[in-house]
Amino acid sequence: MTMTRIDGKTVFGIDVGGTTVKCGIFSKEGELLYKDEIPTRTQEKGRFILGDISRHIEELEKKFSIDRGDVLGIGYGVPGPVQEDGVVNGCVNLGWGKVAVAEESRKLNGGIASAAGNDANVAALGEFWKGAGKGSGSMLMITVGTGLGCGVIVNGRVVFGAHGAGGELGHIPLVTGLTEPCNCGKTGCLEQAASATGIIRAAQRKLRQSDAPSTLRSLDHFMARDVVDAARNGDALADEVLNYSCRYLAQGLAVAAGVVDPEMYVIGGGVSKAGDFYLDKIRAAYRELAFYASRDAKIVQAALGNDAGMYGAARLVLDSLEA
Amino acid sequence: MTMTRIDGKTVFGIDVGGTTVKCGIFSKEGELLYKDEIPTRTQEKGRFILGDISRHIEELEKKFSIDRGDVLGIGYGVPGPVQEDGVVNGCVNLGWGKVAVAEESRKLNGGIASAAGNDANVAALGEFWKGAGKGSGSMLMITVGTGLGCGVIVNGRVVFGAHGAGGELGHIPLVTGLTEPCNCGKTGCLEQAASATGIIRAAQRKLRQSDAPSTLRSLDHFMARDVVDAARNGDALADEVLNYSCRYLAQGLAVAAGVVDPEMYVIGGGVSKAGDFYLDKIRAAYRELAFYASRDAKIVQAALGNDAGMYGAARLVLDSLEA
Repeated sequence: MTMTRIDGKTVFGIDVGGTTVKCGIFSKEGELLYKDEIPTRTQEKGRFILGDISRHIEELEKKFSIDRGDVLGIGYGVPGPVQEDGVVNGCVNLGWGKVAVAEESRKLNGGIASAAGNDANVAALGEFWKGAGKGSGSMLMITVGTGLGCGVIVNGRVVFGAHGAGGELGHIPLVTGLTEPCNCGKTGCLEQAASATGIIRAAQRKLRQSDAPSTLRSLDHFMARDVVDAARNGDALADEVLNYSCRYLAQGLAVAAGVVDPEMYVIGGGVSKAGDFYLDKIRAAYRELAFYASRDAKIVQAALGNDAGMYGAARLVLDSLEA
Repeated sequence: MTMTRIDGKTVFGIDVGGTTVKCGIFSKEGELLYKDEIPTRTQEKGRFILGDISRHIEELEKKFSIDRGDVLGIGYGVPGPVQEDGVVNGCVNLGWGKVAVAEESRKLNGGIASAAGNDANVAALGEFWKGAGKGSGSMLMITVGTGLGCGVIVNGRVVFGAHGAGGELGHIPLVTGLTEPCNCGKTGCLEQAASATGIIRAAQRKLRQSDAPSTLRSLDHFMARDVVDAARNGDALADEVLNYSCRYLAQGLAVAAGVVDPEMYVIGGGVSKAGDFYLDKIRAAYRELAFYASRDAKIVQAALGNDAGMYGAARLVLDSLEA
């Protein structure tokens, strides 16, 4: 991306992660014109983060000769529960307690319209707007990573939830037979079986509990992708682990179908890059478990990768201007 | 209700059941001015039903000197999956196949605005508008009856679902250890444990499988309310059955919390009339199972009884006028 000038109305989409802050400049129509990132300073309870972003936005405005009057808004995705008014109730990864992100952003950036959402919700909104869910009317997105991110879109809008916990599918009580607790304190959360971490743990358990041969035994450490690759190469133990994980994920989708009956499901995150080998297992189990009316809903791979959060953050603030 | 004349703008709320059609006349503000019912003629695939309703509406207009120009709309609740455009995809209890209820109603009633929704969704909307959910921003209602009815309200609107299956919590796959199939063809649906029928079946199973004393053994037949009453009177077996049923219902709510995180839950239907004795069991299990952010959501008894469907049907058509 080499450009010296950005004309017309623009929107900033900011994806605030625990290590870096991804910054995107979008046209009003949702074209990503420029992106870069800055480090996330989590020191002193993350008090520098919003100021750093504000200064970076000013630099970018200067760099591309953007007139501040042409900036329609700044949207943020943050890793924690966010209320619809843009107030965050604690982000462990950023060091934040309660932070009024949208309000702070308006103060720091000369009154520019601002909105904030949970990172997984915002990523879902991004896929809905410009990614795998483009053109659909409702959608549920799951990001399979260290945890299980989730965002729900109904009637074209993110479901924030009354307590900022809309789309927390990772923590629905589904998994039986576990004794170890989830990070949230409960036991039996969906992400304990369906996240990348859940796949690794299930494989470790299986390797301990059985003498069955497996290529995974030759690895000192392995990732969820290694389990997927082993399964794809015919490793029976790895395949069993993956079936276990995919069946629970499908049960999570079938359960969500009984609540909001979305038009489609989008699966993102590292593991989903395995493509149809992984998705077909989820599709087969979903068809078996879902209520008949919802059985034919599509299950597809996410399309925007790590940019989804920036796209969704930009769309979120545009939505807030309409509301 | 004695009146000879109804003035001002009115809305008809029609709750179409398998035996009777409940008809309500409402003011625009949602006051129920008059109600009565007519039989549901399910003969010949239910082809007389909408015509019967149309004639009854004309009679009521005449009876109360209602000017047709003052009728804002006619809303319907029907026992089957309904798309947002008011097309029903089969109602077994009415004998209907695919019926375009809203469109048919407009034709039969001189073009008056019409809308249709699933009966459980519409009942939820009624409770949201004028009942137990009044003043809340989002809500999930469960009606515990022969089956498990459910309606979800997000951002003040019913979630219809992409396939007319929004709020089908009765058929989410949750219950383990069952062998008998649900009416829908799957096994392990929530309503198999949490409906009134589910409570009766669980009690019968328990009575067969154990020698424990129970007052239920002296009854030739019993209803779910008998199980509740026995539990309340200290019958240990009945109490165990009820705890089993309430725990699954609470798991269903905890799972719904992870999708839409509603402000509150409203429980209706015959069994819910047992009040706090029944609700407290659900509340305790919900607090244990739900994600921490959603843990304090209220769980309350429905307030409108059998009128909820008429209220919601009226509100549905008013909403459609705004949209």
